[in-house]
Formats: sequence, C-alpha cells, structure tokens
Amino acid sequence: MPTPRAVDAIDTPAVLIDIDRAQANIERAQAYADRHGLRLRPHVKTHKLPFWARRQVEAGAAGITCQKIGEAEVMADAGLSDIFLPYNIIGRPKLERLAALHRRVALSVTADSKETLDGLAGAFTDAAHRLRVLVECDTGMGRCGVQTPAAAVQLASEIERVPGLRFGGLMTYPPAGRPDDASRFLSESKAGLIASGLDCGLVSSGGTPDMWRAHESEAVGEYRPGTYIYLDRYQVAKGAGTAGDCALTVLATVVSRPTPSRAIVDAGSKALSSDTLGMPDFGELVEFPGARLSGLSEEHGHVALAEDTAPRIGDRVRILPNHACVVSNLFDAVYLVSGEEVVDILPVAARGRVT
Amino acid sequence: MPTPRAVDAIDTPAVLIDIDRAQANIERAQAYADRHGLRLRPHVKTHKLPFWARRQVEAGAAGITCQKIGEAEVMADAGLSDIFLPYNIIGRPKLERLAALHRRVALSVTADSKETLDGLAGAFTDAAHRLRVLVECDTGMGRCGVQTPAAAVQLASEIERVPGLRFGGLMTYPPAGRPDDASRFLSESKAGLIASGLDCGLVSSGGTPDMWRAHESEAVGEYRPGTYIYLDRYQVAKGAGTAGDCALTVLATVVSRPTPSRAIVDAGSKALSSDTLGMPDFGELVEFPGARLSGLSEEHGHVALAEDTAPRIGDRVRILPNHACVVSNLFDAVYLVSGEEVVDILPVAARGRVT
Repeated sequence: MPTPRAVDAIDTPAVLIDIDRAQANIERAQAYADRHGLRLRPHVKTHKLPFWARRQVEAGAAGITCQKIGEAEVMADAGLSDIFLPYNIIGRPKLERLAALHRRVALSVTADSKETLDGLAGAFTDAAHRLRVLVECDTGMGRCGVQTPAAAVQLASEIERVPGLRFGGLMTYPPAGRPDDASRFLSESKAGLIASGLDCGLVSSGGTPDMWRAHESEAVGEYRPGTYIYLDRYQVAKGAGTAGDCALTVLATVVSRPTPSRAIVDAGSKALSSDTLGMPDFGELVEFPGARLSGLSEEHGHVALAEDTAPRIGDRVRILPNHACVVSNLFDAVYLVSGEEVVDILPVAARGRVT
Repeated sequence: MPTPRAVDAIDTPAVLIDIDRAQANIERAQAYADRHGLRLRPHVKTHKLPFWARRQVEAGAAGITCQKIGEAEVMADAGLSDIFLPYNIIGRPKLERLAALHRRVALSVTADSKETLDGLAGAFTDAAHRLRVLVECDTGMGRCGVQTPAAAVQLASEIERVPGLRFGGLMTYPPAGRPDDASRFLSESKAGLIASGLDCGLVSSGGTPDMWRAHESEAVGEYRPGTYIYLDRYQVAKGAGTAGDCALTVLATVVSRPTPSRAIVDAGSKALSSDTLGMPDFGELVEFPGARLSGLSEEHGHVALAEDTAPRIGDRVRILPNHACVVSNLFDAVYLVSGEEVVDILPVAARGRVT
C-alpha cells in the first residue's frame, strides 16, 4: 500500500491524530505547569509513541511516566532518559528487566507493600546507584496504595533502610473530581515524614480530569497527566478541554443504512473499545452531532439517527471516542494529520508491550 | 527472552490457550454439525490464528469466516482456501483487495444494499469467475441486513443480474436466544426466492450461544460459530459450554493487597477489555470463585474479596474473561498450553489487521 497523502485516501477504520491539536495540548499543559512551578511528567500510556514522548520532554517535561516495563523499554530505546513507573513490580523476570533499565536511564518506581519492597531489595543492592522508590498512596481511588498517612511514613522508612533503594516521595492517582481528598492525605503524610526525620522527596499526582487544579494542592510538586495530549469525549465531559481540543478521532465508513433511523459504521469494539466511563453511548460522530453511537459489535458501530438523514452508505465519518488511551492500544499504527494532509504514519511502538 | 517451557515461567499478563480444550471444542461442534448435516464455517475473529483455522478445516469445516479483508488475507497466506466475508465491502481500496483475494481463494461476501452491490459490480466483471454474494438479513439483531424477506428476494434478483456476481444465498447473525425469529425470516425468504425462480443457495446463520439449536431451523444449511473454540464467561452463562470447556484464560499476578477485601492484579482493560456483555463483573478468577473482578483500570484489575483470604501478593491467578474474542485482539501473542506445559507461543497473526 502506498502511503496516503490525504485523509480522504486513508482506508477505514483508522486512527487520526491531529498533530497541531496534540502539540497545542502539550504546550498548554506545560505552560500551566511552568506557571505554577509544577514538574510535569506526562504518562505515555495514552499515545505509546516515542514521537510524542520526545515532544513532551522538548516542551519542558521533567521526564515521562510509563505503566509497563515494556513501555519503558521502548521509550528508553528511543532515547527517553528519565522514566517513572508508578507500579508495583513483582517477580523475578520483571525485576531483572527493571534492573537493566536502571543501568541506562534515570528510573523510579512505586511500592505499596512490604512484599513489593522485599522484591526490589533483592534485585537492587548497589548503594552507589540506588533505585528511587516512591510510596503509592490510595487517596480515594480504591486501587493500589497504602491506606493511611501513617502507613506511608512507615513504608518510606523501610525503603530508606534498604541499601540499594532510596525513598523518593509519594505517588497517588486520585479519583476524578476529588483532588482535595488526595491533597489532605498527601499533606498529612508529608508532615509525618518530616516529623520522622525523612526527606519527603517529591509528591506526584496525576489524572487529566483535574489537571488544571493541580496547583491547588500545596503538597503536590509533580503532575502526571496522560490523556491530556489527545483528550477524548470523557475528558471533554469532565471539562479538561473542549471538543475542539480533541486530537484523536477514529475515521470510519458507513457500510449500511438498513433503516431510516440506523446507520452502521465499520468501527466497533475492536476499534473503539467498549469503554463508556459512565457515559451514555460509545463515542460521538464529529460531523453528525445528532447521531448517537448507541451500540458496538466487534466490527460494527451502531448509529441511531433521529430521522432519515445523512450519513449515507460510503460516507466517511470521524468518531470522537469515549477513551483515547484504549483506542491507541487497539491499533498497530496511527495517522498523524494536519488538517486534511497526512503528515506521517507512526507505528504504535509500545502497543502490545503487555509485561 | 527464552521461551518458557512451563506455565509457571510465563510472565504476566499473558493469554493461555488450553490446546486440549480448544481441540475438543472444535471436534464437538464438528460432530454436532455432521450429525445434523450442517456445514460448519467457523469464524476466525475469535482466535485470529492460522493454527486454529487449519485445525478447524482439518476437523471437517467447509471453510472459514473472516470479518475483515485483512484477516482473510492472513488466512489465505496461510493456505486457507475457502473464505466467507459476511460484511458489506465498501470503497475502492477494499474492493481492489477483495478482487485480489478472489483470484486466489474460493471467496464469498455479503451485501444488504444496492450501494454495496453497485460497488461490487464495478470491481467484479468476469462472468467466467463470478464472486458469490449472499444477502444479509436482519433477523432481529438490529445491525446490518435487509429488513424483510421481500427485500431479500429483491436484492438477490439484483445480484443475479450483475454479470460478475452470483447470488449465493442468505446470511444472518441472529441475536442470542432468538433463533426462531431468524428461522421464520429465513424460511419465508427462501420460499420467496423459490417463487421468484431463483436458486436459493445456502442459508448461513451464526452465533455460539445458540449453536446447539442450529439444526432446529429447516432453512439453515451452514453455521458460523466463532467463540465456541475458546468459549468464555458469557458463553457459559448462555449455556453454550461449561467452565471446564473454556480454553482461554488470562494469567495475571496479584500486585497489591491494599485492604483485607481488595486485591489488585496486573490485568486491566488493556488485557481483558471492558466488555461486560450485560453481566456483572469483568471476568472471574478461576481458582477463587468467591472473588469478584469488580472493576478495571487500564493496567489494574480490581478484585473484591469477601474476607481477608488468598490470593496474596505475588500469587498468580487465571482469569476467565467475559469475552474471549476481544482478549485475543489485545495481545500480540498467545501461549498454547497443555496442562502446565507450554506447547508453543503463537503470534496472533490476524490481530491488528483492522481494514
């Protein structure tokens, strides 16, 4: 297949990334962070592309965040040199890969238990080149993390007792809309660390929905937004950006108009995922705001129309997905576009790096 | 990485395919089809692997079903020679690839509109090597398909008027639990075709949930089950098989036990998808039937435990997903296992072939 030069030559379904919007999103977030003296450490799980990771760092990011060792390896291979893995790394194969990464990039991870700490302690023994470990705090998300500020202080002191490790601070991923709860937990933990004579290091928080409030927490020094680069329907609903800021869309073709009120497009759950994130519908058609993407089969998107109108069979539509991060994860390559021009096709290099 | 020889050496998350169970599922379905004089044409969208497609044909399948041209190309490259694409193929790039496929395998497709037919008519003009086109019928699924038996007959006669096309019969994908509605639609259409002097060709139906009732419809001559090879939590709920027949599981590791009633595993929506198919929870832990996989983040599975019991941090668990087909689509490779032994690692060859 020759590389299409224009959007109208791209076969569907396909992921389009508006390079101008994504770049503007990077710069807007960096300007905000700079204005408030926050370090920005974008999460690459959204794009999984060295191309954007480099641009995020060039714009001023302190480094990047990865969720998987495989993602971090891809980014290290691409020249990214400061990587935070906010995850409990468990088991010998992963610890060996983590140790190899530690030899070539500035690396930090998290722990929320003695068990995770014991594993790290066995794999990192060089007191002259310690691994930076942050304590993960559960500030309301109900996922990983120590449950109280006292437990955070306790684990921090245990990290400091391991010769090959260095306590690096606190990490949290607060639930959307509740940064204040996180702020209280973190401030109390910080006070506890100081009272225990520990350097409280960096406090790192994350999440695109509340990113514009990051400066309100006096404890937080670093922020890890992920989706902000592309944005999506959910983030727009949360107020993190506008529909006009969204950089990722899925280009699809109408393949059937079986009834006046139904259109079927060639993007289903294997292109959009079935993530609703609590919202009605599975995305929206950018050019047809009255249409509802009401259901998904694996390779069919079901569009409900109010009346017998466009789109017609063969029409091409752009779908704004509910959740950009899982869409990136479904495609081997994405099209970088500027207006109607195709700038490049990028393999989603860190996709499929599941371990 | 050396190839692990045993399941306990596989890093997580990983997809395990129990080769003995999958083979038994293939043979059970084929025996059923043979017993009832039905042609079986398994849908490869579930596994996307030439390995299994070949075994399905070796067991007696009449051919295979693919949902995307890219899948069909992979299967043709692997030697599969009879492929049905039950999809409206729209637009020149796909029609050109379809024509290329038609030159090397026995190929058939569907149409549900004049527009689709016009596209096919433009790309297939050789009366000596006609493309077989079935009419897709909407028998209650509310997806693609003509809406009435009369419309099916009308489109069939239009297909027959195109020199490069041959009317091949009727295709439907009925909603789970409603094969009788489909049966009525198909029988009436068949009668209409006969009354119009048309050869009614083959009637092809599909769907694993109702596959064991396929013989009840007098009209249906071919059946296209997909998920039956692996089965999953949804299919077990629908009675298509038992938990002991399920061949696909996701191996995961417990990475956190933040509270007595919560465990976090390293398989989230990027490993399991967020498909619920109308069921509570996002899968189940095979070894811990009392545990509930109650939520998913992208790289975390949230497990709710009734009390402070196993699994503990570092324990490895097998997750039976709600929907096997979308899990295959998330991994670049799967592990074929027999008991605790790793038989092979297979790249999911047709994954990512989105167009």
